[in-house]
Amino acid sequence: MSKSQEVPDEEFVRLSSIALRIPESRLSGMLKRRVLQNVSGFFPDHYRFDKGTAGFETGTALFKTDEGIETVRGFPKIQRAMILGVGIATHFEGLPEVAVEEKMNGYNVRVASIKGTVIALTRGGLVCPYTTEKVLENVGKDFFIDHPDLVLCGEMVGPDNPYVPKDIYHEVDSISFFIFDIRHKNSGKPLGVDEKHELCSHYNIKTVPYFGKYPLDEASRRITGIIRELGKKSREGVVIKDPEMKLPAIKYTSSKSNNNDLEYAFGFYNDYGKDFFFSRVVREGFQAVEWDEDEEALHERCCRLGESILKPMVNTIKKRRQGERITEDVQIRVHSLDTANKFEEHLRRMGIDAQFDEPKLVDGQYLIVIRKFNQSTNDRTSAILSGQLW
Amino acid sequence: MSKSQEVPDEEFVRLSSIALRIPESRLSGMLKRRVLQNVSGFFPDHYRFDKGTAGFETGTALFKTDEGIETVRGFPKIQRAMILGVGIATHFEGLPEVAVEEKMNGYNVRVASIKGTVIALTRGGLVCPYTTEKVLENVGKDFFIDHPDLVLCGEMVGPDNPYVPKDIYHEVDSISFFIFDIRHKNSGKPLGVDEKHELCSHYNIKTVPYFGKYPLDEASRRITGIIRELGKKSREGVVIKDPEMKLPAIKYTSSKSNNNDLEYAFGFYNDYGKDFFFSRVVREGFQAVEWDEDEEALHERCCRLGESILKPMVNTIKKRRQGERITEDVQIRVHSLDTANKFEEHLRRMGIDAQFDEPKLVDGQYLIVIRKFNQSTNDRTSAILSGQLW
Repeated sequence: MSKSQEVPDEEFVRLSSIALRIPESRLSGMLKRRVLQNVSGFFPDHYRFDKGTAGFETGTALFKTDEGIETVRGFPKIQRAMILGVGIATHFEGLPEVAVEEKMNGYNVRVASIKGTVIALTRGGLVCPYTTEKVLENVGKDFFIDHPDLVLCGEMVGPDNPYVPKDIYHEVDSISFFIFDIRHKNSGKPLGVDEKHELCSHYNIKTVPYFGKYPLDEASRRITGIIRELGKKSREGVVIKDPEMKLPAIKYTSSKSNNNDLEYAFGFYNDYGKDFFFSRVVREGFQAVEWDEDEEALHERCCRLGESILKPMVNTIKKRRQGERITEDVQIRVHSLDTANKFEEHLRRMGIDAQFDEPKLVDGQYLIVIRKFNQSTNDRTSAILSGQLW
Repeated sequence: MSKSQEVPDEEFVRLSSIALRIPESRLSGMLKRRVLQNVSGFFPDHYRFDKGTAGFETGTALFKTDEGIETVRGFPKIQRAMILGVGIATHFEGLPEVAVEEKMNGYNVRVASIKGTVIALTRGGLVCPYTTEKVLENVGKDFFIDHPDLVLCGEMVGPDNPYVPKDIYHEVDSISFFIFDIRHKNSGKPLGVDEKHELCSHYNIKTVPYFGKYPLDEASRRITGIIRELGKKSREGVVIKDPEMKLPAIKYTSSKSNNNDLEYAFGFYNDYGKDFFFSRVVREGFQAVEWDEDEEALHERCCRLGESILKPMVNTIKKRRQGERITEDVQIRVHSLDTANKFEEHLRRMGIDAQFDEPKLVDGQYLIVIRKFNQSTNDRTSAILSGQLW
């Protein structure tokens, strides 16, 4: 993100005021406070909401085109059911049925065509050059030629994920894009579940696994079964939707996924531990109660929780004691080194301190390992190992 | 703590400026910002530092007497060794030996005689009427007649502890005061460990258990043994001191005590969970590494950790599901109902929402159960149980 002083673009402010129905003075104020920021890099006239405001989600991206302003709304935060049964019953009250899709574990991407160019936006509303290259391997341009007014929202998953590396989808060798929503530009309004599937099927676009529709009064029992099976495969959980997409979707995740998150985070305990911990532990508590676990099942849940917290931390401390530097290693796989260079620049703009290893040519693509430095964990661990008090 | 607007007392500001060597304008500023607050209740001319500033610790109490200002310094925060071996070696480098005392688990109290009246100050620098009554059962007034310039610093422990109830010291039936430091008024300078013990022995004042002095190069090994034994009895840990008290003391605690803290906190997970969690988990990680635990020992440590987090939370959720209100129950035992009334007022001033049950006469004293409402845990649990999303 550019830290340079914004020079409010009067033309942009005027056009946005019309498109977003926000007074010009308020838009200028947002630019000054950097709630709304100009994004350097891909398009010259690209702005993003750094925070949700005025009814626009964080990550909402604005583009100045010949026709005015085109808006790609930020992907809305999906609320979580802490207790599946009562959560579904309350949230979807009155609906005959709900649609259930897998919540895959990767990073959220919105793909749109702007001025005829297909781009992939990450959650914050930046264009990611790596993701854009990868998406174009999964989604043909013909979809956007026919539907320039639609936005594909989905998850990028696989081992070559430079943001959240996970090797849990054995069908994905590198990195792959799975659609979960199709939404309209500007309004952000989603298509219904069936309509989305029809369109994706027509254009041969992969969607996240779909478990089908369940009557409201059966949904909790059926989803509990799905969650247990997903957990066994280390998969994250589900998103539960109003088939017509009039109500917001909700999510629910497996215990295994909570543990996996903690395990990952506590390897970098001083960087991520605090943020990851509390909500995941509370989820475990409510799931144990909802599932009415006996003494033995609860004991096992406790041991799993404790192990996913302590073991990675112990490993990190031991590694550091042996003089190793703690790095969060991810990788990308690109056809063109130009994409890798642009991605390096993109990470720098995001303020991420990372080192790119020498590219290795593997099956006609460049595999590049990226080492992110978790400075806080490195520093804190070293300090304690050399006697620092707390 | 009084929320009323401070009317800066010019006389107090003038005298404090001399006693504390702080310019009057700065003291007036502190009063305005409420860093320095007038305390209503016990003495009319009692002030306290709400935050550490200008070299004075949080909880430093100032009293206007006929001779000027008397200062009872706040008890300094004791830093923690995360790794015992290197922590001791680094912090006490150059000393021939260290003194080791038990760190008891209760609340920190300073006792001093002000204008001939013996009072007990809690950590924040307020006079606690209950503690004052209890301390006078343990410490005769003759100590302060002979040494009006000294402050007794110690731990109040036992089941009748209205702040941190712990029933782990079987030798304490109700609540009892154990000295760990004797310090000078005004300067806060501590007496040496031997001198403290001699004085306490002379006046028949109880001290926290003393394990003796250990050569620096043996201390870590010996203290590890002590910590393991204390842990078996659920006791907290040790404070390690320079026998001459020229260097600050450091502390180290048992794994069992970390677990007990978590267990207590997660019964009120939404009130205390977040604050208690992180530091205790990190302690567990470093102790596991320092103790070079094998697979089995580490597994057990993980299970203990998980159980001390999840089990109390599950109990709380189940209780709430049955309509019970989650309260943190403590008790006091007083000879005079007047003390109980004053203590109720004291809690109110501290902003604690609590309900006092009817007093029960037990062996000539009034036993009163106090129920503190952990509103956040109650509300959050109820909301989730009735379907609220997160």
